[in-house]
Amino acid sequence: MPESPLTVIPLGGLGEIGQNMLALEYEDDIVVVDAGILFPGEDTPGIDFAIPDITYLRENRDRVRAILITHGHEDHIGALPFVLAEIDVPVYSSRLAHGLISVKLRERGMIRDARLNVVEPHTRFRVGAFQVEFFRVCHSIPDAMGIAIESPLGMVIHTGDFKIDHTPIDSQPMDFIALSRLAGDGALLLLSDSTYAEVKGYTESEQVVAQALDRLIGEAPGRVMVATFASLISRVQQVVDSAVKYDRKVAVVGRSMANNVKMARKMGYLDAPDGVLVSTRDAARLPNERVVIMATGSQGEPTSALVRIANGEHRDVEVEAGDTVIISASPIPGNETLIAKTIDSLFMRGAQVYYSRVEMVHVHGHASQEELKMMLGLVRPRYFVPVHGEYRHLVAHASIARSMGVPASNTFVLTDGDVLQIDSSGADVVGSVPAGRLYVDGRMLWNMYSETLDERRRLSRNGVVAVLLCVDEVTGEALAEPAIVSSGFTDLDESQYLFGKTAKIALQSLETETRYAIDWDRVEARVAGAVSDFLYEQTRRRPTVLVAIERL
Amino acid sequence: MPESPLTVIPLGGLGEIGQNMLALEYEDDIVVVDAGILFPGEDTPGIDFAIPDITYLRENRDRVRAILITHGHEDHIGALPFVLAEIDVPVYSSRLAHGLISVKLRERGMIRDARLNVVEPHTRFRVGAFQVEFFRVCHSIPDAMGIAIESPLGMVIHTGDFKIDHTPIDSQPMDFIALSRLAGDGALLLLSDSTYAEVKGYTESEQVVAQALDRLIGEAPGRVMVATFASLISRVQQVVDSAVKYDRKVAVVGRSMANNVKMARKMGYLDAPDGVLVSTRDAARLPNERVVIMATGSQGEPTSALVRIANGEHRDVEVEAGDTVIISASPIPGNETLIAKTIDSLFMRGAQVYYSRVEMVHVHGHASQEELKMMLGLVRPRYFVPVHGEYRHLVAHASIARSMGVPASNTFVLTDGDVLQIDSSGADVVGSVPAGRLYVDGRMLWNMYSETLDERRRLSRNGVVAVLLCVDEVTGEALAEPAIVSSGFTDLDESQYLFGKTAKIALQSLETETRYAIDWDRVEARVAGAVSDFLYEQTRRRPTVLVAIERL
Repeated sequence: MPESPLTVIPLGGLGEIGQNMLALEYEDDIVVVDAGILFPGEDTPGIDFAIPDITYLRENRDRVRAILITHGHEDHIGALPFVLAEIDVPVYSSRLAHGLISVKLRERGMIRDARLNVVEPHTRFRVGAFQVEFFRVCHSIPDAMGIAIESPLGMVIHTGDFKIDHTPIDSQPMDFIALSRLAGDGALLLLSDSTYAEVKGYTESEQVVAQALDRLIGEAPGRVMVATFASLISRVQQVVDSAVKYDRKVAVVGRSMANNVKMARKMGYLDAPDGVLVSTRDAARLPNERVVIMATGSQGEPTSALVRIANGEHRDVEVEAGDTVIISASPIPGNETLIAKTIDSLFMRGAQVYYSRVEMVHVHGHASQEELKMMLGLVRPRYFVPVHGEYRHLVAHASIARSMGVPASNTFVLTDGDVLQIDSSGADVVGSVPAGRLYVDGRMLWNMYSETLDERRRLSRNGVVAVLLCVDEVTGEALAEPAIVSSGFTDLDESQYLFGKTAKIALQSLETETRYAIDWDRVEARVAGAVSDFLYEQTRRRPTVLVAIERL
Repeated sequence: MPESPLTVIPLGGLGEIGQNMLALEYEDDIVVVDAGILFPGEDTPGIDFAIPDITYLRENRDRVRAILITHGHEDHIGALPFVLAEIDVPVYSSRLAHGLISVKLRERGMIRDARLNVVEPHTRFRVGAFQVEFFRVCHSIPDAMGIAIESPLGMVIHTGDFKIDHTPIDSQPMDFIALSRLAGDGALLLLSDSTYAEVKGYTESEQVVAQALDRLIGEAPGRVMVATFASLISRVQQVVDSAVKYDRKVAVVGRSMANNVKMARKMGYLDAPDGVLVSTRDAARLPNERVVIMATGSQGEPTSALVRIANGEHRDVEVEAGDTVIISASPIPGNETLIAKTIDSLFMRGAQVYYSRVEMVHVHGHASQEELKMMLGLVRPRYFVPVHGEYRHLVAHASIARSMGVPASNTFVLTDGDVLQIDSSGADVVGSVPAGRLYVDGRMLWNMYSETLDERRRLSRNGVVAVLLCVDEVTGEALAEPAIVSSGFTDLDESQYLFGKTAKIALQSLETETRYAIDWDRVEARVAGAVSDFLYEQTRRRPTVLVAIERL
């Protein structure tokens, strides 16, 4: 074996589902797999999304040789505009991912400077010290790839997101033959998708969904609406197939899905006969029983097409009795309540609603336990690192690997930033590099330790009360009654009486503080404290109290 | 049939899971079933809980004869202190529910004036025009009852919350014989629990959980912690039984669970041999493999025992490698993320964690579809009203009733406040009464249309910026630079520069507005608008902008 070690550094996607990014290093060469975003949860209110902290790549930018992309989902490509703005490096991806990345970079005026390369499966290419080859896997987007990265120390297999579907809608099953060829007598290292490592058995084939959708569309007495993820082209294909079969037209509502459908059709990933896809307006002129509407909003996103339809707020589509609505997705954790509300609203408007809890209208895109075992059995890695998952998923996947014969000492449950070094003597975590989330909030960027989010959480629970005092700079005496304004704390009726008393408390506190010496920062803090205590005593709530003292 | 109609008015629990309350009326007599609270969700930040709006009962208080309680869960008894404070009426409940209600009223100094009655199953008693009899059902708390209410028009069966468990832990299965006797040749009306009407098949028996817990506790190498709902006495019983079997002691951590265990043991609902239950301190002195800790926190509640343990913040209990943690509960929708974080934290501290997704460590307390059919088959009602559930659950249950032969025209999917009238000619919804939620927030009470919650949601997304101006009352000129304070909007570094410019914008807007005539409300609104537009242009975010102008 060569003397230099191979280094593995996950920079995102370990400990969370999303913002996937991993660096592989050998001597002077770094190759990066994926550059995704993380969608916000209820614990990050107001945030648009998170991107990985790439301090480490920035500091080593001269050594970064390439970014390899496994597939075109946002949690694998969404951070590219941010990364490429800082590091000029070629990107390698499959054809559909290339299309999606191009759209993204074009929107930001970055396409001209980007070095994007399309990679076909089985094409070997060199990146620094590494030989790279993509191999086909199944996932909930076409053209998803696993990546074989041959290092001087041996073969590294990164599965990307995958499941094993023997009968996928696009007739492109996982390429077991390529994978077993690449793994040879056993790979050095396997990095494998852990998202569904908790789930026993096998993930069902997309064909199961096709059958359920076909039956529901065939039996529907009137209009059908199908909501799913904007990027789930295979689901669109299933709906188009059934629509053709039952002589219906398909209208796509929602900008992101319409764009994806257009591009997928142009690039040959969606097979829709001419005339089947119609505009929403044309669909409105057809009898209800000849129409299928495809829409975004399967996660109950407040501004999505389906949610606006459910709330009677959509410009072009109104739901009515006799309509059949199919939510062809399962809830991403945290979205359960939003989805439930959307379903309830649709029922209240008279629609018949089918969703994953009552009909088999969705299967997810990740391998369950038996498929993960199959992957481990094919690759037979010496070392194993579960990737893509929250901590418990990584732990569950590590336990599966042990059950497949990978020694516990060769299995590493890492978190973002951990530095795993593999050499001829073994493998070990030798340190860590900066890693974490950067939150994108409008045009602002927070690091994950920013107090801004804590402040928002507190505001959301208790509201805010702002107290303004105009005082004489010299004497410290108030020149008028304090002004008090608030939001999210109490109703107007109650506030009149309460804030009258609050103003008095603020004045008393001001007088006590300014009697001897005046340190205005201290005075503001003391007034805020007194007001906070008073409001708590009155209401058993502690709103955020903001105090400003204007000295005149 | 008598000429007067029987009237059914759900006042809570239809369209939501929680705050259950239903009124039955015949002529001058009203009888109420349950008086529960609704636990807050992510859409009601800061709220302690909701109670039903009892305007209708208040306006008819002279006719309210009794409140009948099906069982002792908070979503069935939690609103009693609020209701009894306004309406002096006797309460009838089973023995354990009586114990729990007594604790609640005693804490609030209301026990002396309350008229609480313990009812044994099979004991008939008269309430106005109604004859009432409780019958035993299974649920996730001992002593759960369905209620048979015989009206002059016929028998009304209210199931309460129920499931059919032939082998419950307390050996008290559902009393089918009483139920079929009460239903006679078919009841007039069935009101039945819809919480799990979406779920196919049967809910598993508690015995399945007992086996899983017994195996996990038996195999655990070190200390075991079991987290579940504070009121789930049967789960505590299962753990105590296994602890005895494997020669372990049980310590209960968390005030609410400790209180419940103490009362359940005193009242004979928990069978724990002397010496098995020990204090946390005594447990700390025992070898780890002789200890089971039972704790609250199965929903990831931030202040619960388990979460503090998981975060290393608990005074008495520290989790360590070798510990086994069992989360013996399934997530209540909306809590998924909190629970997942707790599990991850426990894994990171080296514990082996088992939860409902990976082991059969919980079954819920509500009937699935086949049990609901069994209930419909036993009661054979002429009219059917699904209760206890969000709208889609009620719809699903109505569809089950139709499949069991109840005509669609006799099945009523109601929402809170609907007035259903049944007489000899049929049944129909004839109107509605005020109903809805009142939010309890510390000492404050909001109605559900309060803007306070909208304001909190907005604050949580974008934060707040307060602009404070001191001006000359006559000329309208500013006497100093505006003071700007904020929370949850931006980091301090960024704010220095941004707020400098914001102050200038506020001044400009003030000058423009006050140049001609001064309407101070209008000025404040215009300044707020100008500041909001400026901040949006700079950051693509619209924080809540509060403006106060002090006129001197």
